[in-house]
Amino acid sequence: MLAAEIIAIGSELLTPERTDTNSLWLTARLNEIGIEVLLKTIVGDSGERLQESVGDALRRSDIVITTGGLGPTEDDITRQFTANAVGRELVYHEHLEAHLRERFRAWGREMPEINRRQAYVIDGAQILPNPNGSAVGMLYEEGRKMLAVLPGPPRENQPMFLEHVLPKLTKRAGEVFVRRRVLKVSGKGESAVDEIAAPIYTAYPEVQTSILFNKSEVEIHIAAKADDPDKAQAIADELADRLAAALGKAVFSTYGESMEEVVGKRLLELGETVSVAESCTGGLIGRRFTEVPGSSSYFMEGAITYSNAAKMRTLGVSAEILETYGAVSAECAEAMARGMREYARTDHAVAVTGIAGPDGGSDDKPVGTVFIGYAGRDVVRSIKLVLPGDRYLVRWRSSQAALDYLRRQLGR
Amino acid sequence: MLAAEIIAIGSELLTPERTDTNSLWLTARLNEIGIEVLLKTIVGDSGERLQESVGDALRRSDIVITTGGLGPTEDDITRQFTANAVGRELVYHEHLEAHLRERFRAWGREMPEINRRQAYVIDGAQILPNPNGSAVGMLYEEGRKMLAVLPGPPRENQPMFLEHVLPKLTKRAGEVFVRRRVLKVSGKGESAVDEIAAPIYTAYPEVQTSILFNKSEVEIHIAAKADDPDKAQAIADELADRLAAALGKAVFSTYGESMEEVVGKRLLELGETVSVAESCTGGLIGRRFTEVPGSSSYFMEGAITYSNAAKMRTLGVSAEILETYGAVSAECAEAMARGMREYARTDHAVAVTGIAGPDGGSDDKPVGTVFIGYAGRDVVRSIKLVLPGDRYLVRWRSSQAALDYLRRQLGR
Repeated sequence: MLAAEIIAIGSELLTPERTDTNSLWLTARLNEIGIEVLLKTIVGDSGERLQESVGDALRRSDIVITTGGLGPTEDDITRQFTANAVGRELVYHEHLEAHLRERFRAWGREMPEINRRQAYVIDGAQILPNPNGSAVGMLYEEGRKMLAVLPGPPRENQPMFLEHVLPKLTKRAGEVFVRRRVLKVSGKGESAVDEIAAPIYTAYPEVQTSILFNKSEVEIHIAAKADDPDKAQAIADELADRLAAALGKAVFSTYGESMEEVVGKRLLELGETVSVAESCTGGLIGRRFTEVPGSSSYFMEGAITYSNAAKMRTLGVSAEILETYGAVSAECAEAMARGMREYARTDHAVAVTGIAGPDGGSDDKPVGTVFIGYAGRDVVRSIKLVLPGDRYLVRWRSSQAALDYLRRQLGR
Repeated sequence: MLAAEIIAIGSELLTPERTDTNSLWLTARLNEIGIEVLLKTIVGDSGERLQESVGDALRRSDIVITTGGLGPTEDDITRQFTANAVGRELVYHEHLEAHLRERFRAWGREMPEINRRQAYVIDGAQILPNPNGSAVGMLYEEGRKMLAVLPGPPRENQPMFLEHVLPKLTKRAGEVFVRRRVLKVSGKGESAVDEIAAPIYTAYPEVQTSILFNKSEVEIHIAAKADDPDKAQAIADELADRLAAALGKAVFSTYGESMEEVVGKRLLELGETVSVAESCTGGLIGRRFTEVPGSSSYFMEGAITYSNAAKMRTLGVSAEILETYGAVSAECAEAMARGMREYARTDHAVAVTGIAGPDGGSDDKPVGTVFIGYAGRDVVRSIKLVLPGDRYLVRWRSSQAALDYLRRQLGR
C-alpha cells in the first residue's frame, strides 16, 4: 500500500492559536483512495528544518505533500528549500511572471516586485495552476517518489489537489477501496474490550483495527481495504458483526452513533416518551437528549432538582427517604424516577443523584458515588456506581451511565 | 533560546476525525517560559517510525515531549520505541505493578494481565506519577537533551507536565518571566473588540497580545515578558486594566474565569439564589451553572420544559400566551421566568426559549431566534436575539446570552 506524509509549513501553525486543518482534509482524501498517512509534520519558517523534513519524508514515504509558505513575503521559504531537498535548482518561467502581472492588472494594481519570485519553479516539476491565488503549485516526480508543493489557503490548495494531484494518486494507488465501521462500547474498560476483541480482529491482519477510550466509552475503529468497494464493505461488516456478537449488550452503537442518538432512535421506534430528573448532572442529560435534532418527539421534560426542596416539591420525594437514606441513595434515585414519570406523564423516566465532587464525599459514599433510577410502566429500579475521575468526568460518566441504563431497559 | 519539539503519537490522530490538541496546550505552556516550539510531528502506531522521529527530534532540539501511546493495548508502542530511540532498555518496576493492581482493586476490578506492561520504564528515566490514570510518564535526561514521555489524555498529561516537567524547564530556560492575563468579552465581535483594543495594546510592543474568538465570546490574551516576575506582572496588569476600562461592561471576566464562574461568584457575594427554565437549551444552562463546584449554594433548581405541556404545568405559562404569541416569544420567555421564580422560590430566574434548528424556523422567526427572560424581585423583562450558527452553536450561544443577561441584572 502507498504511504504518504504531509508537511504543513508556517510559524503561525506552531502557536497555540492556530491549527493546521489542511492536513485533516488531505488525510481524508488520501484515505478514501487507500493511501495511508503515516506522519504529519508542522514546521515553522526555518529553511534548514524544512529542507531536512522534506528530505526525511521522501526517504521514508513515496508521497509527500507540503502546504503553505508559497506567498511572496520574506517568510515564504518553501520554494527554495523544497528544491534543495530534491537536489534541484529553481528555474524562472517568463510566462508565470506575465500571468502574475496580468492578474494584478485585472485588479487595477501594479505587481509588487516581491511577487516576481512566484515565477520560480523547481526544475523538472509540473506547474499546477492556481485560479484562486497568485502562488502556483508544483508536482515533482522522480522514480517512485512524488512531491506535491501546494499553497496554504484551503480555497487554493483544495481545488489544486483535486484537479491535479488526486487523479495521479488514484492511478498509482490502483483500485484500492477502504470502508469503515465504528463500534462503541459502554461499561467496559479499554483492556477488557481488547481482551475480548483481539482474538477476533487479529484474524483480519489486512484490516486496520484500533481501540480508543473516549471519556466514558470505548470505540473500535475498523478500516477494511480491498480492490472492490463491496468486498471492502463486506469485510468491515463481517468483522464488525463478529465483534458486536462477542461483546454483546455492551455494544451500544454499531455505526458510530452517539449514545443519545441510539436511545432517541429506539424511543422513536417504540413511539414512547421520556423525562429526566437530574441532581448531580445538573442538566447534562437533558442537554444530551436535546442535542439530537427532532428530540422533541420523545423528550418531554426534565427537572434539575439540585436542592432537596426541589426533589420534594417537584418529584414528591418524601422527607422520610431524604432523612433515612439521604439524597444520594438507591431509594432517592428510585423515588425521583417514579416522581418524574408521574409528574411528566411519560412512558419512561430516568433519574440521577450522586456526589460529583470535589467536596461532599464520605467514607461511606466517596466522591463518584452515583445512583441511577429508572421508572417504567410496571417497574422501578436503580443501580449504584462508583465512578472515577474529577467533577467533569464524574458528571459526564453519570450522564452516560443513565442513558445506557435507559437503553438497556428499552431492550437495546 | 531553548528549542523544543512535540511528538503526538497515535494512529487515530492521523485520521480526519481526531485532532491533536495536546500540542497546542503544551506549546502555550512552553512559550510562556520563553521556549520556542520548532517542529511538531504526528506519528501513527508504527514503532519504527516513532523511534526514528524521536531520534531525529533529539538530534535537532534539546527538548522533546511525546504524548500518547502509553495505554495497555496492542497499539501502544511508545514505551519500547522511545527507549530504543535513546538506546536504553525497559526496566520492570515491581512497585508500579503493585500500585496498578491496587488501583484496579479500588474500583472493584481485577487488573487485566495486559496492564502489566505499564510497569516497564526506560532505564535511567525518572518515573512521573499519574494520579488520573494507569500510565506513568517518564523523564529521561542525558547531557543537554531532555525527553519527556507523557500519556495522551489531557487530564493525565497536563497535571503531570505542570508538576514534573515544567519546573525543570523553567529552571533551564533561565531568567525570563512571562505573566499572563486573559480578558473575556461578550456581545461584541472580534473586529469590534480589536478596533477598541488595538490603539491601546500596540503601545506595548513588548507584550504579546492576541485576540481570539471562542464560540460565544472574544478573548484577549496578554503575555508580558520581563527579567523580573513582578515587573512582568505589573505590565500585564496595566495593559489589562486599560483594556477593561476601554471595553466597559462587555468585559465579563478579567482573570480568564468562565461566565458561569463570574455569575456564581456574584450570586455568592449577594447571598442570593437562582433557578432556570430552559426550552431550546434543554439543560445546558443548568449544566453550566452546576459545573462550578459549590454551585449548590446558589443554584436551586431548573426545569427543562421542552414540551408546551411542561411549560404550562410547571411554569404556569398560559394557553393564551402559547396560542397568541407562540412558545418562541418575549411573552413566553417572560412568563417562563416569572413562573420559574415563583415555583422555585428563588431570588432570580432566567428562562430561554428559541429555535435551535435545523428545522422549525420560519420567515418570521428564523432558526437562531431566541428570547431570554429574566424575573427578579420587582421586575420581569426579556431580550430577543437572532444567533448565527448550527444547532450546537445556537444552543451554546443561547446559554451564554442567558448567563450574560443575568450577569447584567446582577450589576456585574
